[in-house]
Amino acid sequence: MASVEELQKKVSELEAKLAAAQKNAVPAREKIQVMSSEVVDSNPYSRLMALKRMGIVDNYEKIRELSVAVVGVGGVGSVTAEMLTRCGIGKLILFDYDKVELANMNRLFFQPHQAGLSKVDAAAATLQAINPDVAIEAHNYNITTVDNFQKFCDSISKGSLIGGPVDLVLSCVDNFEARMAINTACNELNQRWFESGVSENAVSGHIQFIVPGETACFACAPPLVVASKIDEKTLKKDGVCAASLPTTMGIVAGFLVQNTLKHLLGFGNVSYYLGYSALTDFFPTMTLKPNPQCEEAYCRLRQTEAQGRPRVELATEVTEDAGPVHHDNQWGISLVDENSPDEETSTLSLVDGVQVAYSVPVESTPESSTGGAVAASELSLEDLMQQMKTM
Amino acid sequence: MASVEELQKKVSELEAKLAAAQKNAVPAREKIQVMSSEVVDSNPYSRLMALKRMGIVDNYEKIRELSVAVVGVGGVGSVTAEMLTRCGIGKLILFDYDKVELANMNRLFFQPHQAGLSKVDAAAATLQAINPDVAIEAHNYNITTVDNFQKFCDSISKGSLIGGPVDLVLSCVDNFEARMAINTACNELNQRWFESGVSENAVSGHIQFIVPGETACFACAPPLVVASKIDEKTLKKDGVCAASLPTTMGIVAGFLVQNTLKHLLGFGNVSYYLGYSALTDFFPTMTLKPNPQCEEAYCRLRQTEAQGRPRVELATEVTEDAGPVHHDNQWGISLVDENSPDEETSTLSLVDGVQVAYSVPVESTPESSTGGAVAASELSLEDLMQQMKTM
Repeated sequence: MASVEELQKKVSELEAKLAAAQKNAVPAREKIQVMSSEVVDSNPYSRLMALKRMGIVDNYEKIRELSVAVVGVGGVGSVTAEMLTRCGIGKLILFDYDKVELANMNRLFFQPHQAGLSKVDAAAATLQAINPDVAIEAHNYNITTVDNFQKFCDSISKGSLIGGPVDLVLSCVDNFEARMAINTACNELNQRWFESGVSENAVSGHIQFIVPGETACFACAPPLVVASKIDEKTLKKDGVCAASLPTTMGIVAGFLVQNTLKHLLGFGNVSYYLGYSALTDFFPTMTLKPNPQCEEAYCRLRQTEAQGRPRVELATEVTEDAGPVHHDNQWGISLVDENSPDEETSTLSLVDGVQVAYSVPVESTPESSTGGAVAASELSLEDLMQQMKTM
Repeated sequence: MASVEELQKKVSELEAKLAAAQKNAVPAREKIQVMSSEVVDSNPYSRLMALKRMGIVDNYEKIRELSVAVVGVGGVGSVTAEMLTRCGIGKLILFDYDKVELANMNRLFFQPHQAGLSKVDAAAATLQAINPDVAIEAHNYNITTVDNFQKFCDSISKGSLIGGPVDLVLSCVDNFEARMAINTACNELNQRWFESGVSENAVSGHIQFIVPGETACFACAPPLVVASKIDEKTLKKDGVCAASLPTTMGIVAGFLVQNTLKHLLGFGNVSYYLGYSALTDFFPTMTLKPNPQCEEAYCRLRQTEAQGRPRVELATEVTEDAGPVHHDNQWGISLVDENSPDEETSTLSLVDGVQVAYSVPVESTPESSTGGAVAASELSLEDLMQQMKTM
């Protein structure tokens, strides 16, 4: 049985919480100056600092010096931002220009009472309440316009806690133009980034790590694009909308942040491409070399620079990828074996199960584009490359 | 000075007021009677109903008739419950007896202002605000005591929206005793369930689908248990705590709910065992047959019943599992090839990369048990089976 003292303490705590709740204020915790390993219920970092004792991460507290830009704060980006916030990232820079809608409630993070607010402002408020130690910067604009693109480049090149480039850019956008804008910016700025995507039928997704000059950029390897040239507004006007699931989006966000942590804190092996097929629980991985004929001049420049320096650890990790599991090739695309003599002349060394996630309508009806990354393609790889060029 | 009774009354009153204040602070949306496919920003189900138009799910709205029990509302269970809530599940039954702590803030879902509240009550309030259409029942007790175990059995056997058994039980607990209690209940009630777990070093996890009599139950296949006989209190007392990450826990919850949706709504292939190794992005899958010598009498009874009826679809899906990818066997355990003649006499047909996640200390120091599911084991499978029997 509880003592009078314990009960009086409890009453005081509850009265404080009630006062705060009635004021409609969220009593966020106080800021913490130094990450501690102390195992007490009140330490929000104890289970993260335990990664050091478990032998997984050497220097977990380094995370507080790091900054990450999250572009797109929707189904994948919001969960990505929340995971990084809970991990205690030093600084988060959020970009989006959309508003929260009830139609977004089938994904994690946003809540009905936030409907109508801008995604970045609503996200920043929630994230700050979750972890006041994280520096959060919110940008409410579309990065693809000329003016905003320059602002975006400035933000990521001077966005770190000490005014230098951010440590990583995470693309969580849902359209081709925004992905190309991020690709252009990152090639120009020589900025490492992760691309991510979820198919329009909600049952597949992927992440891809792009190191300018060392791996294929987004323009080098068009067939891996999960691109819908139909933008959200067109979809809505036609009474057609993409399906989405909190599961697939949460898993893709999990893969994205897990690989971000592995890269930034230096543990495990970073996946250069990791796919997810929900219907079969299949997870293809691979590494893609840059295309020497890439149409982006900055990509070709980064490739030349990369050739001039000793190979970094990235190249050696190709052998860490899980090899292809040989099912029947149901995709109708020609595969280049990783060990074939053609390898040097082709950037397209796809493992089985990964296919062209290219969903520009071949016919003119929107329905033909809804297959996303799991629809079987009747086109050869050459056909698709040709189509890509005519865009 | 106030008496203990007066103070306890005061605490109850304040708790009720606080719950009400927190509920009122969140302007939840109105209930919706029928799931609509209409593509408007105000429809929280449009992106889910789109799964029908995309040809993924035939009858998505069936989800509103279904009920799922989530046992353990921690790092995996809370996200699991949130995903199901956002998917519009008919009814959720939550079980936990723990309180929210700041030390839980490195995982998704709970927020600092909920510290001190019971996990089930805090979760129920948040989930109800996210989706008022879901019927939520919260049970704040430990299912492993004799009295509570009976209450737990009653809840899951009469917990559906029409008073029958729930459609599925999801185990999101973090200890061996609770998993065994769920296993015993589900064998007795002939109830399908999923087991899930995350290793103590935070970088691996798994889900396992258990159909009494048709797949291995939790007692049939001890080596797959992610069991720590050290309970949370002991860990805390010793100044040792398990590591955890929002990424790994979010991914495991995603796998759990994705396979729950596939099973309940009848699309794709359900994984019977799906593992996740975060360091290498490796995802072993397999199917485990029940052990005819299982120590649980109800498991043996369900096996006999299963033999007496025509094989259902479950057995045929074994061939859908991704085959083993043959890396070097770094685990030091003996593997039984799925096609070997020994198969009929052994339930332990492990694919490469899956290993005994058995973390009872072999030496007496707590440190020796921290390897979780990725630590290399020097023990043979026989040694482990023998150890298991001496527990």
